[in-house]
Amino acid sequence: MKQNFEEKENSYIDQVEGRNAVIELLESGKDINKIFISNGEKHGSINKIIAMAKEKKVIINEVDKNKIRQMSQTDNNQGVIAIVPPFDYCEIDDIIEYAKTKNEKPFVVILDGIEDPHNLGSIIRTAETAGVHGVIIPKRRAAGVNSTVTKVSAGATQYMKIARVNNINEAIKELKENDVWICGTDMDTKKYHYEQDLKGGIGIVIGSEGYGMSRLVKENCDFLVKIPMNGKITSLNASVSAGIVIYEVVKQRQK
Amino acid sequence: MKQNFEEKENSYIDQVEGRNAVIELLESGKDINKIFISNGEKHGSINKIIAMAKEKKVIINEVDKNKIRQMSQTDNNQGVIAIVPPFDYCEIDDIIEYAKTKNEKPFVVILDGIEDPHNLGSIIRTAETAGVHGVIIPKRRAAGVNSTVTKVSAGATQYMKIARVNNINEAIKELKENDVWICGTDMDTKKYHYEQDLKGGIGIVIGSEGYGMSRLVKENCDFLVKIPMNGKITSLNASVSAGIVIYEVVKQRQK
Repeated sequence: MKQNFEEKENSYIDQVEGRNAVIELLESGKDINKIFISNGEKHGSINKIIAMAKEKKVIINEVDKNKIRQMSQTDNNQGVIAIVPPFDYCEIDDIIEYAKTKNEKPFVVILDGIEDPHNLGSIIRTAETAGVHGVIIPKRRAAGVNSTVTKVSAGATQYMKIARVNNINEAIKELKENDVWICGTDMDTKKYHYEQDLKGGIGIVIGSEGYGMSRLVKENCDFLVKIPMNGKITSLNASVSAGIVIYEVVKQRQK
Repeated sequence: MKQNFEEKENSYIDQVEGRNAVIELLESGKDINKIFISNGEKHGSINKIIAMAKEKKVIINEVDKNKIRQMSQTDNNQGVIAIVPPFDYCEIDDIIEYAKTKNEKPFVVILDGIEDPHNLGSIIRTAETAGVHGVIIPKRRAAGVNSTVTKVSAGATQYMKIARVNNINEAIKELKENDVWICGTDMDTKKYHYEQDLKGGIGIVIGSEGYGMSRLVKENCDFLVKIPMNGKITSLNASVSAGIVIYEVVKQRQK
């Protein structure tokens, strides 16, 4: 699974593939340069895309399905590819400000080295449905937002504030200065995720798929929580772990 | 994403690929016909696999890496493929009996048409770590246990009791006769997953990726719960939903 996602990313970053992802993109009101549609696939939800694109004055190019196949960077373009400007990352400030405008305590997800774009996309989707204010990812040794991430996120990348930082520990410091408690997920604690008070300003740290959180990030956490492991397999998929802890926060805040 | 996974399955069912999955398989003590190892990859955890296989008197075949590539049914065999007898599905009775031997109330996950092998594998992994007694899947229009599922499950398929049934509604009836409450996950309810008492014998139903639960299955549920949706995206990935509800049961039982 070790691949250099960073290298891939520059070529990946500027297109959104698949019907639902493109519909979400159109609904989001974000900039779209152009939409390519396979002329063999003009039925079903493609007609919806064409109507929406016309309404928004987005240029549509009908091309041969082989051309679509050549352009495609995911395994499932469904005959539709939208070309968009590079992903617009935000600053940590923007996330804190956004929480303030919603009159909520900051709720942030910090990803310390998620490498698999499917996990990144799935976590962004979960974060969006949960009402998280922003996701923080590192620039190096981690997946960035590309077409696969956008597609797996079901379009949630269009709505979620995502900051891409040089240094996760600096980001944690900045969050702490804004009254955000940093909660790491790790097996090296006795406290289960549901035993920890998570109702304040909170940053949930999810470690990388293979190695978990880095040593320094772990040290910088205010507290650690673990998810109970009752079977023989000793770890969960990163996006499932993230979902369980993120929704524990939702529950505690809503109750 | 609509593919006939049933058709594929017969050719897929008899091999386990990738280092961690094969190590889990060796540790499980299950039957292995043979292990193929690429002779260009004899380092790191491959040596562990060779040592374990020798101890268990499993035949090792060193072959050219092109041969491995030809055999591979996943995108990531890491130079190791184990050939195993077809997956050994169990009966619902076996799941109920297993709960009894553990002196626990039955904890079952029912998948009403999960089609993506990645979701199936991820849910089986989560179920195993959560201490679920068994997973029930339908024979038709759904993914079965194949090499992709086994790999994504991180080897959890080796430990989890999985029943493959002709009819999910018949399975639900059988569970109800054994004092199992059937809890569906659906947006068509006002009750959040954390508001429902899930401490008794419980069967959690997860619907298909595209369509949710079928109408009849939904009617046969004793109660429905939903996961809060606070954003613009209106659904979670099936394996993340499953993880959130499964771990709500774990929490209620452990507390």
